[in-house]
Amino acid sequence: MLSPLPPTLIPFLGPYLPKQPPREGPFVTLTYAQSLDSRIAASPGVQTKISHLETKTMTHYIRSKHDSILVGIGTVLADDPKLNCRYVGNESNSGDFTSSIRPVVLDPHGKWQYSKSSLSQIHQKGEGLAPYILIDEHTQVAQADEDALLAHDGRLIRLPFKGMPRRESWKMILASLYGLGIKSVMIEGGAQVINDLLSESADMIDSLIVTIGPVFLGNQGVEVAPTKGLTLHEVEWWTGTQDSVLCAKPKVREP
Amino acid sequence: MLSPLPPTLIPFLGPYLPKQPPREGPFVTLTYAQSLDSRIAASPGVQTKISHLETKTMTHYIRSKHDSILVGIGTVLADDPKLNCRYVGNESNSGDFTSSIRPVVLDPHGKWQYSKSSLSQIHQKGEGLAPYILIDEHTQVAQADEDALLAHDGRLIRLPFKGMPRRESWKMILASLYGLGIKSVMIEGGAQVINDLLSESADMIDSLIVTIGPVFLGNQGVEVAPTKGLTLHEVEWWTGTQDSVLCAKPKVREP
Repeated sequence: MLSPLPPTLIPFLGPYLPKQPPREGPFVTLTYAQSLDSRIAASPGVQTKISHLETKTMTHYIRSKHDSILVGIGTVLADDPKLNCRYVGNESNSGDFTSSIRPVVLDPHGKWQYSKSSLSQIHQKGEGLAPYILIDEHTQVAQADEDALLAHDGRLIRLPFKGMPRRESWKMILASLYGLGIKSVMIEGGAQVINDLLSESADMIDSLIVTIGPVFLGNQGVEVAPTKGLTLHEVEWWTGTQDSVLCAKPKVREP
Repeated sequence: MLSPLPPTLIPFLGPYLPKQPPREGPFVTLTYAQSLDSRIAASPGVQTKISHLETKTMTHYIRSKHDSILVGIGTVLADDPKLNCRYVGNESNSGDFTSSIRPVVLDPHGKWQYSKSSLSQIHQKGEGLAPYILIDEHTQVAQADEDALLAHDGRLIRLPFKGMPRRESWKMILASLYGLGIKSVMIEGGAQVINDLLSESADMIDSLIVTIGPVFLGNQGVEVAPTKGLTLHEVEWWTGTQDSVLCAKPKVREP
């Protein structure tokens, strides 16, 4: 059960939530929670609590405005996340869920076993859609896993990742999801995905929503830092009891 | 000339400004401005604009509440800072200054040439006190520099840094300043000083005031990250038009 959404978050987030972008392709929101020292986890593969209850509810609220959530395989293996949306309106956060958001897992090398995951269980309980898995066209997948995925209304999206520059891969991923009817993508992590996008593909991000928790995780933690500097536009801050949330546009996108 | 201090900053900062600590020794405030990715400069030795005008005024306001400003030699060599206080009250920020804050430069190996610095010029114009320089007891200083410093009412504070563990060095520095009548120290950087304090001596910090500018400086920048995690208490956030400011207590200090 989620704590209530602070009412001031709704007008604050409004300008940064998906709308039809002036181009072919999905609206892209990049969102994550970090420590003051820009770490998203205390060490690799360890799920670390950074933000507080009110911003957890915010995450589910933002999910409710998107067609899909995309995460990298590192996050899936570390956290075994549910990737569903449990926000059902501010009055009735009674543990219900809305099942209309599509989990998308970026797993080019086929490291994940869907059939043993929380996501599979969530789907079987009727609490979320089965995932789309972005995988290299030449990667082998265990038949049992593929069968389970397809039986659950999931998909393997086979793409020619091998040897492709990262930036081209992101273009291909977004185009491919758009071709499947996905009009908005909320990208939640992990560090490799975030750093990759911020470093070379920041122009593909429509909205950036970063929660900053008042803690230092230390220099052994998993860091978010692009390879070069990046200026932000349309910056707004919201502060809760413990966390601060930044909304911004990384760059004015070309149509 | 400083821009006006946003009036809401005064009650916000109040609980974090110096008061008599329940012990022998100065009140210690650690303060700096960082990017989202926890960089205080885009590259070593390069002064980088992170925060906006309103938080620059805040820095001078905070200075006005302290007896001294301490910075490391790296910052002095990179920025040639003035380290004076130009805040003279919210109504009359007319380019005046208050000269009662003492610059303290941590320069154990005597890398600095005071007589050629902005600080020396500032003092000669009557716009600030001459510095106290924390230097190893065995470090040689050019006679001309020492003469200029003493003529300006500055001091060389000779201490046995060599071979002393960092934590012990900080205790010694603070005790030494307190012995000279300094009841409060605002530590402003640079990265080595900040990381050093946060890593092993966070219990010596009474207040932490961090400005976060809405920019990424990139992973080649000068990073603030302690060697291990650190929890914060009494957390409050203030947000301006562009920046967010965190105030916190790193740890409940023992009396």
